[in-house]
Amino acid sequence: MENTPTLVLNDNVRRLIDAIVIAEQRHLAERRSEEACACTEGMFPRNLPTSRRSFVFAAGSTAGAVLAGAASAGEQKAPPGAQFYEVPADPTKELGRPVGADGGYGSRSQFETEVRWRFPTANEYTSWSMSPLDKIVGNLTPSGLHFERHHGGIPTIDPSRHMVFVHGMVQEAKKFSIADLKRFPSTTRKYFIECSGNGLTEWVKPTLKSVQGTHGLISTSEWTGVPFATIAREIGLKESAAWVLAEGADAAVMTRSIPLEKMLKDAILAYGQNGEAIRPEQGYPLRLILPGWEGNTHIKWLRRLELSDKPFMTREETSKYTDLMANGKARQFTFEMEAKSVITFPSGEMKLPGPGFYNITGLAWSGRGRVQSVDVSTDAGKTWYPARFDTVPEPISTVRFSFPWLWDGKAATLQSRCTDETGYVQPTLAQLIAIRGANGPFGSIYHLNAIQSWAVSADGSVSNVHA
Amino acid sequence: MENTPTLVLNDNVRRLIDAIVIAEQRHLAERRSEEACACTEGMFPRNLPTSRRSFVFAAGSTAGAVLAGAASAGEQKAPPGAQFYEVPADPTKELGRPVGADGGYGSRSQFETEVRWRFPTANEYTSWSMSPLDKIVGNLTPSGLHFERHHGGIPTIDPSRHMVFVHGMVQEAKKFSIADLKRFPSTTRKYFIECSGNGLTEWVKPTLKSVQGTHGLISTSEWTGVPFATIAREIGLKESAAWVLAEGADAAVMTRSIPLEKMLKDAILAYGQNGEAIRPEQGYPLRLILPGWEGNTHIKWLRRLELSDKPFMTREETSKYTDLMANGKARQFTFEMEAKSVITFPSGEMKLPGPGFYNITGLAWSGRGRVQSVDVSTDAGKTWYPARFDTVPEPISTVRFSFPWLWDGKAATLQSRCTDETGYVQPTLAQLIAIRGANGPFGSIYHLNAIQSWAVSADGSVSNVHA
Repeated sequence: MENTPTLVLNDNVRRLIDAIVIAEQRHLAERRSEEACACTEGMFPRNLPTSRRSFVFAAGSTAGAVLAGAASAGEQKAPPGAQFYEVPADPTKELGRPVGADGGYGSRSQFETEVRWRFPTANEYTSWSMSPLDKIVGNLTPSGLHFERHHGGIPTIDPSRHMVFVHGMVQEAKKFSIADLKRFPSTTRKYFIECSGNGLTEWVKPTLKSVQGTHGLISTSEWTGVPFATIAREIGLKESAAWVLAEGADAAVMTRSIPLEKMLKDAILAYGQNGEAIRPEQGYPLRLILPGWEGNTHIKWLRRLELSDKPFMTREETSKYTDLMANGKARQFTFEMEAKSVITFPSGEMKLPGPGFYNITGLAWSGRGRVQSVDVSTDAGKTWYPARFDTVPEPISTVRFSFPWLWDGKAATLQSRCTDETGYVQPTLAQLIAIRGANGPFGSIYHLNAIQSWAVSADGSVSNVHA
Repeated sequence: MENTPTLVLNDNVRRLIDAIVIAEQRHLAERRSEEACACTEGMFPRNLPTSRRSFVFAAGSTAGAVLAGAASAGEQKAPPGAQFYEVPADPTKELGRPVGADGGYGSRSQFETEVRWRFPTANEYTSWSMSPLDKIVGNLTPSGLHFERHHGGIPTIDPSRHMVFVHGMVQEAKKFSIADLKRFPSTTRKYFIECSGNGLTEWVKPTLKSVQGTHGLISTSEWTGVPFATIAREIGLKESAAWVLAEGADAAVMTRSIPLEKMLKDAILAYGQNGEAIRPEQGYPLRLILPGWEGNTHIKWLRRLELSDKPFMTREETSKYTDLMANGKARQFTFEMEAKSVITFPSGEMKLPGPGFYNITGLAWSGRGRVQSVDVSTDAGKTWYPARFDTVPEPISTVRFSFPWLWDGKAATLQSRCTDETGYVQPTLAQLIAIRGANGPFGSIYHLNAIQSWAVSADGSVSNVHA
């Protein structure tokens, strides 16, 4: 590690580099005259910078995202979450940016334009935004792209004033500050969170065009916090306690009733996400994590836990978040998210440039535990092949799968099917509707975990279909 | 999921909330008059907002970080990586921020002030910045706080123009764009990267005061990319090939020679970090990941791989990144990072408020595989106790450990000791110096993996010591 500002390069290496650079420049000149590969469209901005003064970014989302502060032609602005820097003709010929120029907290590259897409609800406070699953790699969701679902906007909370009260059927009611919670031993686990409304537009007919729209209400993070079991030991529970009301500090004062058994099994009072404080949209400074259960129960901005012998029958578990069945009755407290999977490449609104090799890839998950296996079909479910795992399967976490496909150029229908460690197999839409019916406002609403179909036409275009 | 803007709250719930809010306000008024717990100092900004118009942030780093754009008194600015928002007196009484107000890519809370600390090298281009290990939770490093080590600044690279050339002793030299690489099956794994210079100031005497300074050149991310083995199959290797030169596209044109055996075993050409594109400081758009090997070999901004039958003897493996031994000879190609651990709480510059329970916690890692066990001592290594793991140990990844400690208020010396799955035990500094000597410019320079000692004095102050 040198402490001097001089950059001394070995002459032989420099000569070699110069030769390479000349070859690279020649290659790049050739490459720029070629037609861009349609297959990779959308991975990078379409309007590539051709000079320093005409730097324009395209919207990153195929589902219709509007970039706040997006550049108009000729302006030098970066997409959300990035800083703009000039692009040198040859980065080896001039010094880069200094260490610390970002103030000590880094941001993504200006060339990365993917954003969450807000579903066009009547207002922006009771709304949701969806993760760009077609752009995400691996199985962790970048914190800045974690899906959102808010019922009264995102509150701004000072963590030094925030408290969580634990009371009701307990030996001693107590309140805990975030600093108090950080004095307990912590646990860190990777879990997905999926909104039970993920796919609500897709029951009756294929509606949203991209995988961000059909499946973007799932994200995966590493969560750090204190197990509720630790808190329970601290306060002591009364024998009659059987349910816990969890309440948020947002304008909706979101409340859900959770069986005590689940709370003691694996619930976490989480103050950390992906190594740092939980993000404001995800409940800063404290969120209840209920591994594998519907997202709505993971109460954000958590400020109160009340122990009781029965559920509280709040609005969000009576008029909302119940499942109307075919016979007109409704299922209540359908907490567990069943096994599900989706192909993210190729997926809706993409276009394959022509016959040849494609690495089909996607995500699979189950609220019941580990994903056991994923199968892929290219003929609408007539034939199934086992996919491989590109990430290590972990309990109640997304796993990245892939399958090598040699496309012959004929129309094809791509599907994936997840089996979890309990033996549960992801159903077809027909199988699901046979049980659940389709007599709700969107057909049904919640807990759509059916097999997704993407049609590839002979021209290579990919679209959302029911098959 | 409602589509209407009306927020309807159950009257009973509202009444209950009002009662709670009154209780909470009373409690908060009491709490604000109490002396802040010295133990939690540094976890939150010291100058808490007392009104909307006097919002000041303190520097987040105990190691002397200067916040770029930090607020002067009375200004309303957020720390790096955050947006400023007004704090409502009661977040349940007014709507929060709308979904999408951030442009679709979120940022951290304005109350989170931790930053990377730049080591004060003579210039800012050939320099490094250190992760705030005392602030990080779990075992993943937030992408914005991943340590940096640059030899010629951070280049700005357009990914659509970037190529990696693979040539030399191969059957067919090829160049790959990022889009080309994304067409191959990917792999995603969590690995730490540690600079071999981590701790270089600590050989002779304790120098830097906080754990950010002594150990902050280690970070952990999930990396996604194409195994080099896949590329090797694509191009075909000549039988004589035994080494690979990896070259970066920065102003330093960083180059290192890597044994082919390692490249084929587990090297990844990584374009992804924590679910999104690799960050600019970490090599955007492409970095070589060499699991468990010294950080310098993980070539950033990767643009060339040359196969050869011998190492290239570049500057960074001859005049730098070698280990001068006690006998005056130097070890070369000391790639593997040995087992190491450090207590992050309590650690240097913290102060314990008084005798009582403390959850000692820290990080352990090994470049050779999984961490097998971690022991903790509170008496300078005379007695050792097994620590528990708060995260699941994974190969070549940091694991979070903890140990419950009832401090009696007397002077104590805290240590942690890591044993990896090969049976290797983290040495004391004396054991390490007996082999390595201390005749380099800083005593020695690289590969300091000795046991770290933190002295707790009777007044609760914690400091960096050699014990």
